[in-house]
Amino acid sequence: MSHYTKILLAQRPDHRPVGSHLFEVQSKEIPTAGPGQILIKQTHMSLDPAMIGWMSPDTESYIPPVELGSVMRSSGFGEIVESNHPDFTVGDKVMGMIGWTEYALTNGQGINKVQSDIDPEMALSVFALPGLTATQGLFNVGKPKTGETIVVTGAAGSVGSIVGQLAKAEGLRVIGVVGSDEKADWIVNTLGFDGAINYKSDDLEQQLTELTPDGIDLFFENTGGPIQHAIFNRMNAFGRIIVCGMIADYTSENPALGPNWINIIKKRITIQGFTMPDHFGEVPALLAKLTPYVMQGNVQYRSHVLEGLESAMTGLNLLLTGDNKGKLIVKL
Amino acid sequence: MSHYTKILLAQRPDHRPVGSHLFEVQSKEIPTAGPGQILIKQTHMSLDPAMIGWMSPDTESYIPPVELGSVMRSSGFGEIVESNHPDFTVGDKVMGMIGWTEYALTNGQGINKVQSDIDPEMALSVFALPGLTATQGLFNVGKPKTGETIVVTGAAGSVGSIVGQLAKAEGLRVIGVVGSDEKADWIVNTLGFDGAINYKSDDLEQQLTELTPDGIDLFFENTGGPIQHAIFNRMNAFGRIIVCGMIADYTSENPALGPNWINIIKKRITIQGFTMPDHFGEVPALLAKLTPYVMQGNVQYRSHVLEGLESAMTGLNLLLTGDNKGKLIVKL
Repeated sequence: MSHYTKILLAQRPDHRPVGSHLFEVQSKEIPTAGPGQILIKQTHMSLDPAMIGWMSPDTESYIPPVELGSVMRSSGFGEIVESNHPDFTVGDKVMGMIGWTEYALTNGQGINKVQSDIDPEMALSVFALPGLTATQGLFNVGKPKTGETIVVTGAAGSVGSIVGQLAKAEGLRVIGVVGSDEKADWIVNTLGFDGAINYKSDDLEQQLTELTPDGIDLFFENTGGPIQHAIFNRMNAFGRIIVCGMIADYTSENPALGPNWINIIKKRITIQGFTMPDHFGEVPALLAKLTPYVMQGNVQYRSHVLEGLESAMTGLNLLLTGDNKGKLIVKL
Repeated sequence: MSHYTKILLAQRPDHRPVGSHLFEVQSKEIPTAGPGQILIKQTHMSLDPAMIGWMSPDTESYIPPVELGSVMRSSGFGEIVESNHPDFTVGDKVMGMIGWTEYALTNGQGINKVQSDIDPEMALSVFALPGLTATQGLFNVGKPKTGETIVVTGAAGSVGSIVGQLAKAEGLRVIGVVGSDEKADWIVNTLGFDGAINYKSDDLEQQLTELTPDGIDLFFENTGGPIQHAIFNRMNAFGRIIVCGMIADYTSENPALGPNWINIIKKRITIQGFTMPDHFGEVPALLAKLTPYVMQGNVQYRSHVLEGLESAMTGLNLLLTGDNKGKLIVKL
C-alpha cells in the first residue's frame, strides 16, 4: 500500500522567519477516487507572497485564512491519475488550488484542464496568479497610457517582472526596484526594463530622480519599504498607485508608516488596493488580455525551483527575504 | 475723488500663524469702467482653506500660486456699479473670483450673475466652493450607498458640514469629527449627524469604535491629524477615502506620516484626492445635483462673519486653528 505526504498548517506565523515549526507533516495512504471524484498527482506547486496572508489570523483579510489543521493552501499543477468524473480523463494536465500535498482527491471544483503540452513552470509562472495579478493590476486598476512612466517595486518578482514587461510592451518608460544587482541586471538586460534601482543602495532618491526625469505616473507597489516614500514624492498630477503587495511588512513587528496625504490632494492621486480573489470571475477576460503578449514573446519569466514537498516550509522565507530568483516553484 | 482698499500678497507663508506681515495694503482711486468692462463693488468675500495653498510657493499644487505683488485670490459676492458690458446691468448681483479688494474692474470673465434675492452669506456658504466641493467629493468620488457609514473630519467646517448633511439625506450613518464640544453639539443637534467626536478628547479610538459599530465605508478627509490613522484602521472592505483637505498639515513643519498601506490591500481600499479647480467645467451639473437638497431644507449652514477687508489677513488663521464657527466670510 502506497503512502503520500501532505502538510497541514499547525500554527499561525508570528514574525519571520516562517518554517517547519508552523506545520505538521503527515504521511497517509493514497486514496481511491469515489463516485464523481478525481485523484490528482501534483507535480509542481506554486509558492506565492499571498500565502503569508492566508496563514495569518487576520480575519479582515481578503480571503479566509487557512484553518489550523487543514492542508496549507496553494495553487499547483498536476496530472489526473484516477477519474470517476465526466470532465476529466486519466492523463489530463490540470491546475488549481491543490494545496501542499502530493495527491489530492476532489470533486473537480476549481480544477481546470490545461493544454497537455504546456510547460508546468510556465503555467505557474505566467498563466496563474502572477500573470493574472499583473494583468488585473496594471490594466484594470492602473490604466496605463503610452509614454507614461511606471515604477514597479519587487520588479524581479513573479508579479512585478510581468507588470514591467507588459508596461514596456504598451510603450511606457519602465523602472524597476529590486533587491540585488543581479536582479537589476536581469530586469534591464533580459526583460528590457528602462532602468533598475537596487533598494539596498545609498542614493535611492538620486537614482530615482535620474531614472524618472518626467516624474512618475504609475506606481505598482509590491513591497513597501523605505523607497515607497521616495516614489510617492515623485508622482505626477493624476498619478495612480496600484497597491498589490507589501511583502516587507507582512511579518514585520513595526510596519513602516506611509507618506503624508497632502500630495494626494495636490497631485490628485488615486491609490487603490486590489487582490486577485475578488476577480476570479474575470479570469477568462484576463487570460484573453494576457495571452497575446505572451504569444508575441513579450513575457519572459524565470523559475526558482525547490525540490520536494517539505522544502515549501522554509522556502516561503525566500519570498520574505527576496532571496528567490524568479517564480518560486516546488517540484514534487 | 474716492478711494478703495485692496490687499496684495507680498510674501509666501512659511509657518503659522499667517498674518499682515505677508500682505501689502494699498489705497487706490476707484477706477471707471472702460469699453467692455464692469466695475464690481464687492460686499462679501469668502475665506477658504484652499487659500493657504494658493499662497504657497509649491508649483506642483493644483492651481498656480498667487503671484507676489498681485491681489490675493478669493471668491466673493458683489454688485455691479458700472457696466459697459452687454451681459451685466448696474444693480446685478454677481459672484466670482473677485479677490481681496473692495472694487474690481474686469471684463466679466469668470463673473456670474446670481438671483437678485439670494442671501450673500448663503451664496458663499452653500452655492460656492464649499457646496460644490462637498457635492463633487461625496457623490462623484465617494459614491455613497444608503446604509453605509461615513466619517467626515472637519465636520463643522464649510465643506464637511455640507458633506455630512448630504450623506444624511442619502440615508448614510454620518459621524463627524470636530475640534470643540460646541461644534459637536451643532453638527448633531442642529445638522442631524448621528454622532460627533471631539478630536481633542483622550479616547478617540474608543469613541470611534462605539459610533461606528459596522465599521467605516467612506472617509471624507478634510483635516489630517492624529485621528486619521484611527479612522483608516476601521475602514471596511472596499472602503473609499476621499482626500479633500489636510488643514492640520498645510503650514506644519513636520507633516505627520500616513498609515501603513497593508490595509489598502487587505481591504481593497481606494484613496482618491481631488480639488475643485479640476471640475469647474462640471459646475452646472454639480449645482443641479446640490440644489434639490438645499430646496428640501437638507442643507443648513452658519457663517462666521468678519468685518472689513483688512480682517482677512489674520482671519485666515481661524481656518488653521479651527476657531471659526461656520463658513468664514468677510463683510466689506
